[in-house]
Amino acid sequence: MDIDGLRADTPGCAKVAHLNNAGAALPPRPVIDAVTDHFELESTIGGYEAAEQNQTAIARFYGAIAELIGARADEIAYVENATRAWDLAFYAIPFTEGDRILTTTSEYSSNAIAYHQVASARGVSVEVVPDDSDGTLSLDALEAELAKGNVRLVSLNHIPTHNGLVNPAAEVGRLCREHGVLFLLDACQSVGQLVVDVTEIGCDMLSATGRKFLRGPRGTGFLYVRREIVQTLEPPFLDLQAASWSPSSGYEIRETAQRFETWERYVAGQIGLGVAADYAADLGMRAIEERVIWLGSRLREELSARPGVTLHDKGALQCGIVTFTVDGMEPGAIKQAARERGVNVKVTDPLDHGYDAGAVPHSVRASLHYYNTEDELDRLLSVLP
Amino acid sequence: MDIDGLRADTPGCAKVAHLNNAGAALPPRPVIDAVTDHFELESTIGGYEAAEQNQTAIARFYGAIAELIGARADEIAYVENATRAWDLAFYAIPFTEGDRILTTTSEYSSNAIAYHQVASARGVSVEVVPDDSDGTLSLDALEAELAKGNVRLVSLNHIPTHNGLVNPAAEVGRLCREHGVLFLLDACQSVGQLVVDVTEIGCDMLSATGRKFLRGPRGTGFLYVRREIVQTLEPPFLDLQAASWSPSSGYEIRETAQRFETWERYVAGQIGLGVAADYAADLGMRAIEERVIWLGSRLREELSARPGVTLHDKGALQCGIVTFTVDGMEPGAIKQAARERGVNVKVTDPLDHGYDAGAVPHSVRASLHYYNTEDELDRLLSVLP
Repeated sequence: MDIDGLRADTPGCAKVAHLNNAGAALPPRPVIDAVTDHFELESTIGGYEAAEQNQTAIARFYGAIAELIGARADEIAYVENATRAWDLAFYAIPFTEGDRILTTTSEYSSNAIAYHQVASARGVSVEVVPDDSDGTLSLDALEAELAKGNVRLVSLNHIPTHNGLVNPAAEVGRLCREHGVLFLLDACQSVGQLVVDVTEIGCDMLSATGRKFLRGPRGTGFLYVRREIVQTLEPPFLDLQAASWSPSSGYEIRETAQRFETWERYVAGQIGLGVAADYAADLGMRAIEERVIWLGSRLREELSARPGVTLHDKGALQCGIVTFTVDGMEPGAIKQAARERGVNVKVTDPLDHGYDAGAVPHSVRASLHYYNTEDELDRLLSVLP
Repeated sequence: MDIDGLRADTPGCAKVAHLNNAGAALPPRPVIDAVTDHFELESTIGGYEAAEQNQTAIARFYGAIAELIGARADEIAYVENATRAWDLAFYAIPFTEGDRILTTTSEYSSNAIAYHQVASARGVSVEVVPDDSDGTLSLDALEAELAKGNVRLVSLNHIPTHNGLVNPAAEVGRLCREHGVLFLLDACQSVGQLVVDVTEIGCDMLSATGRKFLRGPRGTGFLYVRREIVQTLEPPFLDLQAASWSPSSGYEIRETAQRFETWERYVAGQIGLGVAADYAADLGMRAIEERVIWLGSRLREELSARPGVTLHDKGALQCGIVTFTVDGMEPGAIKQAARERGVNVKVTDPLDHGYDAGAVPHSVRASLHYYNTEDELDRLLSVLP
């Protein structure tokens, strides 16, 4: 990878050492230009007229995302963010009383809230599968729960927001297929960071955002729904994009994943997200994954060598999200000191941590992307004792 | 109104005669700059870091919209478009079997689809209140239906997308209050075009978009929910913005209209929409309404004087949306001829017309905003026989 060239292609790299890619990454020049140019065209000739003119770029979104994750274009819906994408899939599942939802200790709180809303409304139980000793979801425990029956859904994130962990998505997918159980994967932090292939993983639904490791615009996301199951899922909301209308015979829901879309949308963002997906694919997700994991390991090594530093990352495989605390230094003070040296990190909020919420302290989160450099990691380290 | 100054403040006015404001209006310079500047800041210092820096502008959104429509800031939710805003309100209503929904002949098809989805799922009936002879919703008929009881919701648009009509929203609101019935107003085409005051109208919920007469960015919208009823509406989706989370006690839904939001969003759009609302309020909605209605009347007058032209606008009060057909000229050919003279109009799609869908032909729709000029109307007229 030509890191210097990639950094030159990213205007933000000249301004900040951006180690907050799990928040929102810095977009590369082609993404910035795609969004800005379309917005300018809308302002100049009108929004619908601009969409007509750029219909090829708008349509490219579906193919770009599909190619990136090994899906087919008609399995992709453009959604305004990862939360809504996940919601649209989750709330479409026809739960009935007695159904069980299995999830993990590291689930994101927003998803946990949704589970509990549906649980109390429809008499469904939510069960948290325990971890192995290294903090990874226990596949043995998952298999045992699946064997008990009545599991309607296994739902988890690929990478949680806060602890470096990579969940064994493909192994979970294999177990779900064996038991004929739906598998919803929240890939918010993994798409753009790791190789994510829906066929390899074997998930039925996958949600993701544009703004994080994909380096797309804020206010964009997508939903993948496997072609074979899409017609079993009735979207919670319907409009003229999701369904067709006849005043005499009523409505008919689309047969593709676009049944989860609305007609109105952030068009410039859709184009930008397509460009971001193509940009990642052109670089190669394998190369991106290798570099991100290498940078993460390097930062963890350096941190472990520091006195008073505790790493909070879990799991056998760890990604580019690195979380730690330092004895005698508040995470907020570290963030502030880093900011003063032009380094962006985040302080994690324990309330984001789902079922782990009580157990995890406020930590510093440095989330690394391929365009980060060892020098930038050293700038962060220079803030520590 | 200083039309020349306002046009100079709108880059698109130099390029096109934009008579497609009911599609998406041309944004003024301050809106363009707000969106572009924030997006550039995100690209330069990071998305979350930019939001931190611009938090005042982001927060201003709520006050700006509230002031524009006579609401309170905590009654406003930022939503990604008008469809989702409307959906979030509609699907939150706790319908029970036997409930009746009353709507109008001119309802938008997307809303009609949603009624029928809920009707078949929950045993609710959808009833279309007939029009008066001029095509306006009959208030007498509405009152008679309300008197029969079991009406859970009156739901209509303020201005339909296709026929010039302005529904008598305040009179509907008075009847709904008398009968203690929920009133959901789809104000997609009215906010930014007419004076819209939720207290005067007496609606419980109101949805609107940024991109149309408000002159805001695509991919933005809002929902108003009256403070007194917001806690009776459980949002169809919940996340960490809509509710708080505790792993021991579960979730608690927010007490304000922000229970309908997601945490993740198109932040640059939110800022831009706030600026658009302030821009409209500064000009004065009374003055905007007067000019739009005057331009609409003038175009209708000119059209009526042309041989072979049929106007399709309905209602006692007509707005800036003007629809017509011309004997012997296809609407698509008129649109194309207008485009060649730099004039943007739209051809209406009968399938958008809800319960009217069979009855209305493809027409030319010219939708006028205050920044349009008589000269621009003449350019459209010059295309006709």
